[in-house]
Amino acid sequence: MLRQSQRSTPRVKAGRASLDRAAANAILDEAPLCHVGFGTAEGPVVIPTIHWRVGEQLFFHGSPGSRLAQVMAEGRDLCVTVTLLDGLVLARSAFAHSMNYRSVVLFGQARVVTDRAEKHAAFDALMEKLAPGRAALLRPTSAKEYAATQLLAFPIEEGSVKSRRGPPIDVAGDESAAIWAGVLPLALTAGPPEADALTQPGQTLGFPSALRAPWPHTA
Amino acid sequence: MLRQSQRSTPRVKAGRASLDRAAANAILDEAPLCHVGFGTAEGPVVIPTIHWRVGEQLFFHGSPGSRLAQVMAEGRDLCVTVTLLDGLVLARSAFAHSMNYRSVVLFGQARVVTDRAEKHAAFDALMEKLAPGRAALLRPTSAKEYAATQLLAFPIEEGSVKSRRGPPIDVAGDESAAIWAGVLPLALTAGPPEADALTQPGQTLGFPSALRAPWPHTA
Repeated sequence: MLRQSQRSTPRVKAGRASLDRAAANAILDEAPLCHVGFGTAEGPVVIPTIHWRVGEQLFFHGSPGSRLAQVMAEGRDLCVTVTLLDGLVLARSAFAHSMNYRSVVLFGQARVVTDRAEKHAAFDALMEKLAPGRAALLRPTSAKEYAATQLLAFPIEEGSVKSRRGPPIDVAGDESAAIWAGVLPLALTAGPPEADALTQPGQTLGFPSALRAPWPHTA
Repeated sequence: MLRQSQRSTPRVKAGRASLDRAAANAILDEAPLCHVGFGTAEGPVVIPTIHWRVGEQLFFHGSPGSRLAQVMAEGRDLCVTVTLLDGLVLARSAFAHSMNYRSVVLFGQARVVTDRAEKHAAFDALMEKLAPGRAALLRPTSAKEYAATQLLAFPIEEGSVKSRRGPPIDVAGDESAAIWAGVLPLALTAGPPEADALTQPGQTLGFPSALRAPWPHTA
């Protein structure tokens, strides 16, 4: 279970909220990116970045010169939010329209990972999330490349999950309206892969058809 | 053009950044949801919510009892971030992998919209964004329903756009690696509509095939 706190307790529609760690993990694993919030003297800032999960930790990476990596490295309070949009809920009144979604909001501080083995394993996990099996086809990452990339770990500990699923819930009296109502499912979906100019015709090694999750393919 | 400020100036990869208002508008219009950050005594909080644009303003809505609506209504400093993930960039080394994306980061304060005509027009625009043409098929929204929904306007003024597009940029020396490299395009895509239990068989009125943007259909 995730740890609940004042800031992680939803005020409205609490029935959509939970502290279920397995549900949180599934959302974190499916989503390719998150939004990280932090405070500054000038006000809040929210930046999108790639995240990935290993056990009960999230990882982030970035250029050591980026503001987000610097803020994270300083151990400042962060809010990490991941949202998957699952569908548009088309009801029998404008007011009853909604979205199906799953989201996780986490609170905590990151730490810089300097241990070499931990860093290598974490980056392997990133490649495995984004392009399963591809890392084995590539040259090893050099020490210089590892040094040029900051790795940050963040505990999956305090926060909550929120979601909505299922059909529209119409206002009483609207049920008899003669109109199609239901859900238009939405998902991040891959289109036909686009080879770059250096890829030889017929090159199948590394072709992304091998990518399993998180994106179903249309082509 | 958007207004630049210290907090809206990217520190790294500045070549991916711009202040172009038309580019910002296109991203805001395509994305169905944003992430809103605000500060609290306990630290930063980032919440996903639906946004929509009318001219040079963004709109948000919510239950007046929700924390996000309350924070917005108080005129507190907000950061509104919208991100579209366009593709996975598969390079010839792990290090050169990347994502294609378009994002907008905006800073400012919201105001509660109480003017009746402005409120009605804004909600019409929300329906038109999410389900073009559908509002005309539904009963009018009641005064009670309008009263139960808080509308907030936010100026599209200070912020920046950041994006990456195009093929992988490999590390010098990797170009000859015998592997497929390129881009796996990703987009939020609609699947087959799921009618609810009250929808009569053969009901075509309001069927979401009429939905144009922002989601291409797979079915």
